[in-house]
Amino acid sequence: MRSMRIDIITAVPDLVVSPLNCSIIKRAQTKGLVEIVIHNLRDYAYDKHRQIDDKPFGGGAGMLLKPEPFFECIEKLKAEREYDHIVFTTPFGKVFDQKGANYLSLSKNIMFITGHYKGIDDRVRQKFATDLISIGNFVVSGGELPSLLVIDSIIRLIPGVLNDSESALNDSFMVGHEISAPDYTRPAEYRGMKVPEELLSGNHKLIKEWQERESHALTEYWKKNNYIAE
Amino acid sequence: MRSMRIDIITAVPDLVVSPLNCSIIKRAQTKGLVEIVIHNLRDYAYDKHRQIDDKPFGGGAGMLLKPEPFFECIEKLKAEREYDHIVFTTPFGKVFDQKGANYLSLSKNIMFITGHYKGIDDRVRQKFATDLISIGNFVVSGGELPSLLVIDSIIRLIPGVLNDSESALNDSFMVGHEISAPDYTRPAEYRGMKVPEELLSGNHKLIKEWQERESHALTEYWKKNNYIAE
Repeated sequence: MRSMRIDIITAVPDLVVSPLNCSIIKRAQTKGLVEIVIHNLRDYAYDKHRQIDDKPFGGGAGMLLKPEPFFECIEKLKAEREYDHIVFTTPFGKVFDQKGANYLSLSKNIMFITGHYKGIDDRVRQKFATDLISIGNFVVSGGELPSLLVIDSIIRLIPGVLNDSESALNDSFMVGHEISAPDYTRPAEYRGMKVPEELLSGNHKLIKEWQERESHALTEYWKKNNYIAE
Repeated sequence: MRSMRIDIITAVPDLVVSPLNCSIIKRAQTKGLVEIVIHNLRDYAYDKHRQIDDKPFGGGAGMLLKPEPFFECIEKLKAEREYDHIVFTTPFGKVFDQKGANYLSLSKNIMFITGHYKGIDDRVRQKFATDLISIGNFVVSGGELPSLLVIDSIIRLIPGVLNDSESALNDSFMVGHEISAPDYTRPAEYRGMKVPEELLSGNHKLIKEWQERESHALTEYWKKNNYIAE
């Protein structure tokens, strides 16, 4: 049984607690398929005020996270084990996609360095980051939520995390670049809205044809609206 | 003073608790600039087993969230106030970007419908969704984390949420499509790594030129790696 270790370094550890203890991420940890360790940046600030941030050189707005606590924490972790990837989320990183998720899911040890507010002294990125990942072209308050999304997407790919019945193989983006067909459940009619009759037919050939047609139509819609050059 | 109301409907309410009670999102609520209400889907399941999911018609893996609890919850909320946007996160939605964040940040009332596991009976989307948003071309376990990212990005744009010193105006993507220059703080030299001398010069013209040059270089790098057709 393969298992993955994920380390997250953050100045706001409370932010990541509840998402890591719910649903599929929680179950993966309970099954022993992944170990997730949260590191509070402040625990690695060794000056007497435990200061983790300071003003940026050259002026400008906001406070930056200082380099020393990151260096202390990352060097300690790197001395304990080898990391396949040290991920740094940043607006100019490579936009994350399913190919990136598949790739990262093969790792044994991954570290996530997350900034908050105005970010991190750039020497941390220069010294340690192996993978610069962007979650998209918009501004958020820190690297925590982007890192959680990446973590969610890779954990569900670890063999054994999903049940057979949840197999990731039918998800959108897993088969080529196809969006999966819409799903319906009971009741067959609700508030005047009916489930497509093909799905109710019990005829597997009809059902499959309908799903392929719908999947194709949604994929064409998606390509028109969201095409990202590779 | 303008204030925004955000409703989140989820089958996994625990997942969103800690991110909504930290950092800038917490502060925005404390200041009364935003009210965030989490709705547990199960509270709107009125059958005796409080069932919220069922098998998909036509076979296939996993469980789908049933339409009735969503209809009950959404119709109750819509009867109470008008919603500018009812956001549904889905892989074939429009890829979210800063333009989308700016647009949504002008709303008074926004509702987020989040699916989990295999998703939601498609009639919920057909009936209520006004905005289909994708957080990127990869698979995650639910709409909760994508919705939290969207919420973070829009809350920080509400006037009064950020302090003057944190002004969002200098962030990447805020001025055209420019990535901001790297930041550095003390110490000026650490483990042999020096802060660029321009930033230490005290010469505002030199500093500004350096920042513009670096910003331009990062933006070119970003365009080469991440260009998304508009």
